Amino acid sequence: MSSTHPKIKGVLSPVVTPFLSDLQPDTEKFIQHCQWLISNGVGLAIFGTNSEATSLSLQERIKLLEALLEAGVNPRQLMPGTGCCSLPETVQLTRHAVDAGSAGVLMLPPFYYKGVSDDGLFRYFSEVIERVDHPDLRLYLYHFPGVSQIPLSVSLIERLLKRYPTIVAGIKDSSGDWDSMKAYIDNFAKDGFDVFPGTETHLLKALRAGGAGCISATANVNPAQISAVYRNWKDSDIETENAKMVEIRQIFQRYPLLPAMKKTIAVSRNDPQWAMLRPPLEPLSDDDYQKLAQELDQAGFALAP
Amino acid sequence: MSSTHPKIKGVLSPVVTPFLSDLQPDTEKFIQHCQWLISNGVGLAIFGTNSEATSLSLQERIKLLEALLEAGVNPRQLMPGTGCCSLPETVQLTRHAVDAGSAGVLMLPPFYYKGVSDDGLFRYFSEVIERVDHPDLRLYLYHFPGVSQIPLSVSLIERLLKRYPTIVAGIKDSSGDWDSMKAYIDNFAKDGFDVFPGTETHLLKALRAGGAGCISATANVNPAQISAVYRNWKDSDIETENAKMVEIRQIFQRYPLLPAMKKTIAVSRNDPQWAMLRPPLEPLSDDDYQKLAQELDQAGFALAP
Repeated sequence: MSSTHPKIKGVLSPVVTPFLSDLQPDTEKFIQHCQWLISNGVGLAIFGTNSEATSLSLQERIKLLEALLEAGVNPRQLMPGTGCCSLPETVQLTRHAVDAGSAGVLMLPPFYYKGVSDDGLFRYFSEVIERVDHPDLRLYLYHFPGVSQIPLSVSLIERLLKRYPTIVAGIKDSSGDWDSMKAYIDNFAKDGFDVFPGTETHLLKALRAGGAGCISATANVNPAQISAVYRNWKDSDIETENAKMVEIRQIFQRYPLLPAMKKTIAVSRNDPQWAMLRPPLEPLSDDDYQKLAQELDQAGFALAP
Repeated sequence: MSSTHPKIKGVLSPVVTPFLSDLQPDTEKFIQHCQWLISNGVGLAIFGTNSEATSLSLQERIKLLEALLEAGVNPRQLMPGTGCCSLPETVQLTRHAVDAGSAGVLMLPPFYYKGVSDDGLFRYFSEVIERVDHPDLRLYLYHFPGVSQIPLSVSLIERLLKRYPTIVAGIKDSSGDWDSMKAYIDNFAKDGFDVFPGTETHLLKALRAGGAGCISATANVNPAQISAVYRNWKDSDIETENAKMVEIRQIFQRYPLLPAMKKTIAVSRNDPQWAMLRPPLEPLSDDDYQKLAQELDQAGFALAP
């Protein structure tokens, strides 16, 4: 028996996590940012790479998720990242997210050991699924070889889908490689496996090929435009809208992406604290911000109110 | 004010972690293995790479450490691994290890984000040290670029030593690169900074250059021979002993090292459960074990009783 809820589609954002000056998560500001994203048409892939999820403790992730629910955020808008290096912690976060009613979970593979086999990864994901043991679990794999260093092969996904067809629900592909996304779509979209490129640059192409949307960092700063491209992708003038959206993405990408987004939010909201990151990551330099701001200005970009 | 205890030196082992059939750590067997290592002259770098530390939850690490203390293991024999990806979890484990009286902690850098700056790493280690805020903290850095992908530069260590001269105590260098170990020794050994190669292959060379010992996976299976080379390194016939020891290391290294050690322990102790690893790692294949056993037999190797 599997979940009767419709699957989550469209544009999601790995929600950036604001910190207080003592580096604790700023829960109130986090909730506000999440509500702002939803009001701009974007779902919440909280605890992703650009959320500094691995820089948060397990307990911090649990508390932030619970704070969102208490603030009235609809859990069907949530796809929390729950993949840790350890099986018990991945199981704990995943079970918590499913119990909370999340639309899905986005799961990094265990990322400390390198060069692990598909057999080992299959055994890992199987253990997670069987220990969580919940029909509502919808597991989205997280393919980000540039950072996790653990690629997820087509043959691994084939085995997982065969064994857990109602649980293994899709993938976020942050490789930046269209051939990779296309391979996942071509092999598995027909089985209802939802492929989300990790950037809006590939959104239109993915939708045309049978993808489900995108999960993109820059949806933290440009949510309305990206979600509009998703909603209107069959419109005749979509190429123009798409080009404008891609231009904004490309500007942000020329800088360290996460620090650039946080600094942009900080300046736009007149709240310097937003620019802070947990170490080992660092805020954007003032020099870089001056250049970024100029480029964004020339492109007519402004953070939505 | 810094600790009045003498610093830990010599041979330490990243203690392999035994698991029950449900993948829970086998605490009793873990204690026995630790006591056996100590009786063979080897200190306990519990929660290292070959301990599958990142595959354990934070709570599992805390419980295993406490079980060792309850069993009467001297905490001055301990150098627990405490480096997580997140600052609060690293602080929690480090504080727990220091409060337990550990001789030191072995700290991986945060290893999810790649290409982080020395400034970011300096800020990270500084935050850990200042939050733990304990004069008995002795922090051993863990340089393992092949797995963590985060190299620790000479200039980073220089900054850390300058700022925290009584806290930053040494480094484990698992790069396998003698030039790297030599650079740490040449730059910092004169300041009392202890350099431990990550393999006994470099033990003798390191001692002659001013190193402090080694922290080596294969000390889990060959502790007596490695600790004898450490104790007797100035003996005239040490090259012969050293060559025998290196031969055993090289045999193990021709196989997946951790699974090969666990399988050897399992067979030697007639306890198949010892061969198990947590996913994503996998046990040694029977084929590989047959070859390994033959090589070890030809070299006259047997696990000490």
